[in-house]
Amino acid sequence: MQNRQITIAELPTAELTTAHFTQIETDLPVAAEGEVLLRVILMSIDAANRSWMKGATYRAAVQTGDAMPTYAICEVMHSNSPKVAVGDIVAAEATWSDYVIAKGHHVQKLPKVETISHLMSVYGIAGKTAYHGLMSIGRPIAGETVLVSAAAGSVGGYVGQIARALGCRVVGIAGGPEKCSWVVDELGFDACVDYREAGLSKALASACPDGVDVYFDNVGGKILEASLTLMNDKGRVVCCGAISQYDTDTPTGPRNLPGVIVVKRLKMEGFIVMDFAHNDAKCIRALQHWVGTGQIKVFEDIVDGLENAPKALIGLLAGDNKGKRMVRVAADPS
Amino acid sequence: MQNRQITIAELPTAELTTAHFTQIETDLPVAAEGEVLLRVILMSIDAANRSWMKGATYRAAVQTGDAMPTYAICEVMHSNSPKVAVGDIVAAEATWSDYVIAKGHHVQKLPKVETISHLMSVYGIAGKTAYHGLMSIGRPIAGETVLVSAAAGSVGGYVGQIARALGCRVVGIAGGPEKCSWVVDELGFDACVDYREAGLSKALASACPDGVDVYFDNVGGKILEASLTLMNDKGRVVCCGAISQYDTDTPTGPRNLPGVIVVKRLKMEGFIVMDFAHNDAKCIRALQHWVGTGQIKVFEDIVDGLENAPKALIGLLAGDNKGKRMVRVAADPS
Repeated sequence: MQNRQITIAELPTAELTTAHFTQIETDLPVAAEGEVLLRVILMSIDAANRSWMKGATYRAAVQTGDAMPTYAICEVMHSNSPKVAVGDIVAAEATWSDYVIAKGHHVQKLPKVETISHLMSVYGIAGKTAYHGLMSIGRPIAGETVLVSAAAGSVGGYVGQIARALGCRVVGIAGGPEKCSWVVDELGFDACVDYREAGLSKALASACPDGVDVYFDNVGGKILEASLTLMNDKGRVVCCGAISQYDTDTPTGPRNLPGVIVVKRLKMEGFIVMDFAHNDAKCIRALQHWVGTGQIKVFEDIVDGLENAPKALIGLLAGDNKGKRMVRVAADPS
Repeated sequence: MQNRQITIAELPTAELTTAHFTQIETDLPVAAEGEVLLRVILMSIDAANRSWMKGATYRAAVQTGDAMPTYAICEVMHSNSPKVAVGDIVAAEATWSDYVIAKGHHVQKLPKVETISHLMSVYGIAGKTAYHGLMSIGRPIAGETVLVSAAAGSVGGYVGQIARALGCRVVGIAGGPEKCSWVVDELGFDACVDYREAGLSKALASACPDGVDVYFDNVGGKILEASLTLMNDKGRVVCCGAISQYDTDTPTGPRNLPGVIVVKRLKMEGFIVMDFAHNDAKCIRALQHWVGTGQIKVFEDIVDGLENAPKALIGLLAGDNKGKRMVRVAADPS
């Protein structure tokens, strides 16, 4: 039995292309004592994949020859660990592969649900990132204005829907008129500004007549700069990502930092979803409540086939997804 | 009786010079009902004076023809207010003038102390800004490393001394070898890096072998950028000022923002000292304790004569002060 893997052929110095990846075949790996053999079902495709290629972050840098790391949902095929059994569905740090080996105590057993992909979207990394960042750092209050960039993305869509459920005015930023309409019509945002149009600052100001109390930033760069000028005193900026800065070798910082932080007494704070794992049960209960009331709608963007993972990532960086993007490597076990 | 005032002749578009000011003489102003006539004794000279000339901040912009606003310590010469009496020493929002009018309920009566200037340095805006920013936003813990820019300045010197008293390793950043020696020898910092020397990042890294847990930023720009690269995960950046950005028309943001905030889960937060007025009593008690134990030494930089206020501000922006800079307009009443 062979195992397909997608590895880094060459690290990008500027824009990522399919030429930076290569597909190899290896023998099926063998689980040692305490380890498990996993079949990858769904892989999470995230802007973070690109940032790992730029150097060490909260994890070691990805190197040439490495299979691309990924958060994945997997089925246990063989277990040498008392923690999990064959047939269990688990979350694991995997790679872009058909099969991976993991330590039994490193994987997390997932509950049985009807639609496994929901464990990666609304009840997974996307929904949890949105909830924890918004609730713990943004702390929005009914009546406040919440601005969200990458509003049609996996995290942004949930941020806006949660903030609406809390009684906030919610304004999105997305690329292109079709996505902006979708954000308003399907996700229920109050307004959505197209950052590809000229006059971003003016459009934002008119969409946020009372200023911005919470800005949930997924992009950095010029959009962050424009958003900062609209912040109200004591506003909170949730620093979740900087997708505009990942796929370039000449990052640019917002020119109004740190001046605007001092003058408006803003707070900018970064986080990663694992920091809030101790609150996950509370988070999932809240998300289930809002899904139940219909205040949160679940949108997923599933690309089929391991071989399409590079294209799925490149497209994500160009902003062509709506909702949580993932790659299906194998069918759900039934 | 005549009243000298220094007003804005022309708003600067780049570097501030004495040509941007003019001195005028007017009649002594007259206090209406509820108002008081104040003689200005000491004026606080702050980088903020320069930022007010750039546009609206937490106060309205200073305009051509305005006398420069200033925080001042004054003697009450005439009172039409039941709140204060002739001879009282008060803190007031004044202007660069011999005499000003203020509303009685806008001035704050100060305690009788031996050295009035201490009410502007350690027990005034400098000491309070240092204390509140460090304690409420920086929240340093014994054993952590605290990095402070403008370490020889009015606020930075107290930040470092307070952090030392709390048991932190304290590293300063200042301009020139003489100032750096003074920061270590007189203020007791563990180390001080000269930002005018080549190789700032390397020098900072070697002065902070365990990274930086709290960075108290008075300057912004390139020094902020270099400091951010040294932050430990969950580090706190206290945004107190951006003196490097005030005297220019082409501000530059740190190129590593917001990326580094996300990756290291940093918090950056701005404040102004008035936000923490409810904690002033606690603050003064702590500062008095440390002054009493000798852990805080008080350094003041007093320039004589109202006519020298423009030069005192220009010099402050160029970094030629050690300790809290103020201008003495009139002798202490005795």
